[in-house]
Parts: sequence; structure tokens; C-alpha cells
Amino acid sequence: MSPSIHVGPGEQPELAHAVETAGGTVVSLAQADGVVWAGTKPDSLPELPRSVRWVQLPSAGVEPWMSRIAATPNVTFTSAAGAYAPQVAEHALALLLAGLRGIAASARERAWRIPPHRTLSGATVAIVGAGGIGRALIEQLAPFNVEVIAVTRRGHDVPGAARTLAADAIGDVWAQADHFVIAAPATGATRHLVGAHELAAMREHSWIVNIARGSLIDTDALVDALRERRIGGAALDVTDPEPLPDGHPLWTLPNALITPHIANPEAALTRQLARRVRENVERLASGEALIAQVDAERGY
Amino acid sequence: MSPSIHVGPGEQPELAHAVETAGGTVVSLAQADGVVWAGTKPDSLPELPRSVRWVQLPSAGVEPWMSRIAATPNVTFTSAAGAYAPQVAEHALALLLAGLRGIAASARERAWRIPPHRTLSGATVAIVGAGGIGRALIEQLAPFNVEVIAVTRRGHDVPGAARTLAADAIGDVWAQADHFVIAAPATGATRHLVGAHELAAMREHSWIVNIARGSLIDTDALVDALRERRIGGAALDVTDPEPLPDGHPLWTLPNALITPHIANPEAALTRQLARRVRENVERLASGEALIAQVDAERGY
Repeated sequence: MSPSIHVGPGEQPELAHAVETAGGTVVSLAQADGVVWAGTKPDSLPELPRSVRWVQLPSAGVEPWMSRIAATPNVTFTSAAGAYAPQVAEHALALLLAGLRGIAASARERAWRIPPHRTLSGATVAIVGAGGIGRALIEQLAPFNVEVIAVTRRGHDVPGAARTLAADAIGDVWAQADHFVIAAPATGATRHLVGAHELAAMREHSWIVNIARGSLIDTDALVDALRERRIGGAALDVTDPEPLPDGHPLWTLPNALITPHIANPEAALTRQLARRVRENVERLASGEALIAQVDAERGY
Repeated sequence: MSPSIHVGPGEQPELAHAVETAGGTVVSLAQADGVVWAGTKPDSLPELPRSVRWVQLPSAGVEPWMSRIAATPNVTFTSAAGAYAPQVAEHALALLLAGLRGIAASARERAWRIPPHRTLSGATVAIVGAGGIGRALIEQLAPFNVEVIAVTRRGHDVPGAARTLAADAIGDVWAQADHFVIAAPATGATRHLVGAHELAAMREHSWIVNIARGSLIDTDALVDALRERRIGGAALDVTDPEPLPDGHPLWTLPNALITPHIANPEAALTRQLARRVRENVERLASGEALIAQVDAERGY
């Protein structure tokens, strides 16, 4: 049977097209079995009629939605986790290379001065939270003769990683890798995953990249480590607080690089969400399990 | 027979070790069949005794050596072309991503402001001069869903490129690709390969990366194009003049990014030259053709 899907807020021609391409019918909210919602704020989503069994959210991280999701246990929410993964991984690699290669420092120069710089080739890179983004990043790192250590919740082997650690053994990783890419979901358990203790275990040349959520790093501890040059540097697309306020030390520390949460360029965003919508409407129509179902208890 | 090789200038323990590993013997200049020379200036190389048949130079580009090479037709000079290729390709990718991803602009910010940014994924990238560096770059671009157009002297197919143009058809490439990586040798024929005409054919969002030699781009024409925002930007590890003087407009144009000729980090340099020395001494001993022989007429 053709799934009846409401698409909003307002006109979303690319997403409506994706629903129809997948064999669905775009309907009003009152008639809907499912909702594809492109609004990023939970209070933008209207109260759902009892007929709605599924809501597709537009973002990979869904922590603002958790109370809403927990309050609607009869509805399956799916996030966009994984849909933007190759884009975000590309930004992670760009940040890592910009840090290692002295590009961030050079961009601020107005004279021919050699910045600290090193090569990615031959390094050991830990990917903390090797889900969709981490896996895409592992593919992108493959040509660089890099050894990847993956950290996942359960520690099941990740293809392309030299080894995989379970989350409860993460304490070992900080001294084992040259560089770190934080790609784990933001949950109560991952808040300040990287704090003073973890930074102290890192190497003097280590760069840390965060393309997940700002709260995963203890910002004050990071600023201390950068000020004292105890690590190579930090390249952050997400910060805590975010947006990073004017005058914050991370704006001026020479070994810090900030991009303003642009890992997933808007131009590419709708195209990728539309692909995920098409996949999930097809699965809904055929009764298959939906991609990226949110688990209210797990928190993502 | 074990080749007798002089290594200089001064002590070069890693290079001497490479000679010996390859079955060669390290000798004084007067006794040498071959010379491994780590000095970067042509006048650093002493006059060669008649016994010397081969000189290994330390750099990939050898234009300062050409008159010396032309004056010594009975000696085979080999450059280090290709030895540093993966390193330099890594820097080219780092520069391209830093430009596209808004990282260069963000590095100069002190406030949360969204810079122009786009994704590499899905773009068409022209590699102008697809020798060793270009081929390494093609491997590094493979995970990004990029279409590569290679430009080589003769236009023979380059593995991994969607298509290859011969140098005499290069005029077609400027309007066909989104972004350009200049990796061709510096010769009389490639001087100002990219000038006002070529820049005018590029797209408004095009980035141009130069990791070859500064002279391949007409700097004044590039500055004009960047000032008028006719292209997306330029990320240059080499410049003309080089070093780029203080006060040069390329230091302050927001769509220009300069790194001070650091594509091949020194820490990795000797290691890579040593590998090439080992390969060439082995070939010398076994009578095989040496890698990267310089052709005095061709100019590289």
C-alpha cells in the first residue's frame, strides 16, 4: 500500500518528490501515516494525529528531540544519522589536514614564515564513535597509509580499522593514537568524553578534530591544554558553547581552528536528506526496518 | 659490481645508509662512479671527476640545475621527481579542501560567521601535469566521488582519471573542471600556463591549487581575478616571486591562501630521498634504467 506522508514545514519540493519517487503519497497532516519533517526545532513539529506511526527528522543528532520522542512512545522517530556522513567526514579530513599541514596557521600569516607542519601519512588516527561518519572517514583515510583505531559502543570490528575498542575501553586510546577525530553522538554518557585527563594522555603533536557536538569536549580543559601547548592543536566544527562567543580564547589561540558548524554544506543537505527520505519511504512501503531509528533510552 | 658512490655535502648518514643497503660503497668524490647530492644549490656541487657517470639530485624540480646538467652531457642526472609525490599530493588535497570548505576564511575569523563553503564531493577536478604527484592525488581523491580530468604531455590515459588531455589540448580544460591542481614541471613551455585568459575561462566557484612552481601561474593575472572574485580562490604552496614579499596582495586577499613551500615536510623528506637513493643504486648495480632521469632538452 502506498504510504501517506505529510511533508513540512511549508513547501519542501525536493522532499515531497523523494516521497513520491519512493511510491508514497503526499498528504495533509490529518491524513498521514508518516511525517517527513525538515524543521530543526522540536516545537516546530505540530501535535501528531494518532494515525502517524513514523516521523523522519532532518538532523543526524537528535538530542533536542529526546523529550518529545520519549513522550510519544507509539511513534517511530528516525534521525538523518548517516545520511550526511560522507560530507561530514570530508570536513573532518579537511580540518585534520589543515591542522597538521600548518594551513590554519599559514592562513593567518602575512609573511613567509614556516609554521609547525607535519604529514598525515604514517600517523595513527583514532576515530571515536565509528558510525556512519567514522566509516566514511576510514574510506577517505585509506590512501594515506594511516593506521586507524576505531572506538565504538560495543567494540565490534570496523572494516578498515587496524583495531576497534569498545567504549568501556576508551581510556586506552588517548595514549595510543597520534590524532583524534570525535564523531560520537552527544548523550549523557559522552558529555566531556575528552577532558583534562584525556588531554593529558595525548602526545605533544596530537591534533583533535570535533565534528560531532561541542559538549563531547570539555572546552575549558581544552583551552588549558592548547595554551600550554600540551597537544598539537584542535580543529573544531562544533563548540561548547555554540555559537562560540566573541572574545572566546579559542578564536585567538594559534593552535586552535574553528569552523562555524559547516561540516554539512546546506547546498548538499537537502539532496542528502531527500535520498534518506526516499530510502525510508520505500522501507515503510515494503515493511522493512527503517534506517536510523531513534532509541529513546539510548538517546540517539 | 658494487657501485662506488660519493654522498654529500657533509655527513648524510641516512643517505649513506641507503647507498649501503642497496649494495653500494660510500667513497670519496675522487673515487666515485656516482654522486648522491643533498645540496639544493647547483654551485654547492663540486666539479665532477671524469669517473662520475651519475648524479642523484635531492629535489623534484631541477630548473636551477639545467645549465649545469646541459654542460655535463656525459653524466646522467636523476631528480627526486616522484619520490615526494604522496606527501606533496597530500598537501594539494589539504589546500583544496581548506579552500572549498571555508577553512582558510574561518582561520582568520574571530567571530561565528559562515564563510563561503562547498563540498569536494561530486566536483570535477583537473590535475594539470599528472605525473607522480598527480597520480598520488588521483588515489587520494578516489573516495570523494570526484571526476578527474588529467592533463599530461602526451595525453596517454592516466589510471583513475575520467579522461586525459594532451598538453596541446590544455586550452579545453579551463572551462571543463570545477577546480584545478597545478602539478606540472616548470619549463619554458609551462611558464604562465595559467594567465588572464585561462583564469577568465574558469567558473566563479573554481579553486586553483599550485604545489608545483610559482612561475606556472601569472601572479598579477591571478591577483586581478581574485580581487574581482572571478574565481572561487587560490591556494598556493609556491609563488612567484618566492618567497612572497611582505605586503604582497596575496597575503590579504580573502580568497587567497598561501603556505610557504611546505608541501614536503622536512621530517619526511630525507626518509623519502633515502628510499629513492636505495632504488637508484640498486638499479645502477643491476644495469637497469634509473628513475627520474633528467632530460636536458625537455627541461625536467
